[in-house]
Amino acid sequence: MKSIIPNALTALNLILGMGAIIATFNGDFYQAALFIIAAMISDGLDGRVARYLNASSEFGKELDSLCDLVSFGVAPAILAYVFLLKDLPGVSGYLIAAFFATCGALRLARFNVNTGVVKGYFMGLPIPAAGCVLSTFIMLGIKPPSFIFSIIVIISAYLMVSTIKYPDFKGQGEKIRMIPVGITIVISAYILFMLTFSISTMLFVPFFAYALFGILNTVFGLFDSKPIT
Amino acid sequence: MKSIIPNALTALNLILGMGAIIATFNGDFYQAALFIIAAMISDGLDGRVARYLNASSEFGKELDSLCDLVSFGVAPAILAYVFLLKDLPGVSGYLIAAFFATCGALRLARFNVNTGVVKGYFMGLPIPAAGCVLSTFIMLGIKPPSFIFSIIVIISAYLMVSTIKYPDFKGQGEKIRMIPVGITIVISAYILFMLTFSISTMLFVPFFAYALFGILNTVFGLFDSKPIT
Repeated sequence: MKSIIPNALTALNLILGMGAIIATFNGDFYQAALFIIAAMISDGLDGRVARYLNASSEFGKELDSLCDLVSFGVAPAILAYVFLLKDLPGVSGYLIAAFFATCGALRLARFNVNTGVVKGYFMGLPIPAAGCVLSTFIMLGIKPPSFIFSIIVIISAYLMVSTIKYPDFKGQGEKIRMIPVGITIVISAYILFMLTFSISTMLFVPFFAYALFGILNTVFGLFDSKPIT
Repeated sequence: MKSIIPNALTALNLILGMGAIIATFNGDFYQAALFIIAAMISDGLDGRVARYLNASSEFGKELDSLCDLVSFGVAPAILAYVFLLKDLPGVSGYLIAAFFATCGALRLARFNVNTGVVKGYFMGLPIPAAGCVLSTFIMLGIKPPSFIFSIIVIISAYLMVSTIKYPDFKGQGEKIRMIPVGITIVISAYILFMLTFSISTMLFVPFFAYALFGILNTVFGLFDSKPIT
């Protein structure tokens, strides 16, 4: 019965995700993005509460993935569509939004099947991070050309299904290289400096930095000296 | 590699579900409902193709649930919201739409955990049927008072998480009683007679009849003579 609390938090994640879609309908993009960030907080709490109460369950894990797809796959994709993708010619905006949601679903299904194999890191950008990159970018209030924005959406989607290793902040796992850390800090500081200082900027930059770091860390990993066999 | 075909059909289910949400945005409710029905056809095919190709996989099952939530939980809930629920006072329309999606997620999580226990029937109205009851109702073009419509949404949502047994059309399983079958046929025939004859009517009545039959079959089951112990 004590599993009710974490499962209620998971359901709250979905309810907030639905709020994001409805706020998008009402044309309030800022509120929609806030709903997605609130869903991320709720999503971060449910697992912790479940472990603390010793109430982790198979049911809870299934429910968690289902709700994550709505809040961080579908809601950001719809937000991105109404924000800018709809201006693309023909059905291309729709297809790019659907591509983002589909990559999110593939990411979640792979994660559930691979739990026993992938340990100490995340394979591919986690879906809450990808959803929050898009949402916090939209919060910035910048309207780039829709073509540029579509590239941001496609890259975020691809990072989810990629095999790029992302740190899970629980120690061990993938090696963290110092040069990529340095480059990420420099680029993030530059963006912070370029953008108007606001809560939106403070939210966007960490998600952007996390997504960027995984790419740089993987690229620099290719140059690691390997023992000759 | 042959699992690509069924998984592509599952992804198509999600892409069509996203199409339904976007059509709802554009105010084309009829097209949105058609997208949901097309998603149901795609969803019906993927499992069959996977079994035929002997390519059923854990990954495919996870992906299937994820896509079902979007196409038959979220898309019909958003469609119902924009169609009529938004006219309800305050945030009640939003909460009813979120309730429908949440019941859908709970139904899918329970289904995945119970696959070994529940055999020969469905426990609770399957989510594609619940989503299609709402979608095909909206296709009819009838606008009931939003209060009445909200009751239809709440009942459809509740039926998903109920323990009412629904036939799975593979024989055996739950006993099918003749009196409920008769009542369902009479009521369905009456509705067919009352509504204008159209494709929408031909689509709505079978889903309505299926949802109704489960309720009647359960109610009549309560009167079954039980052996005295």
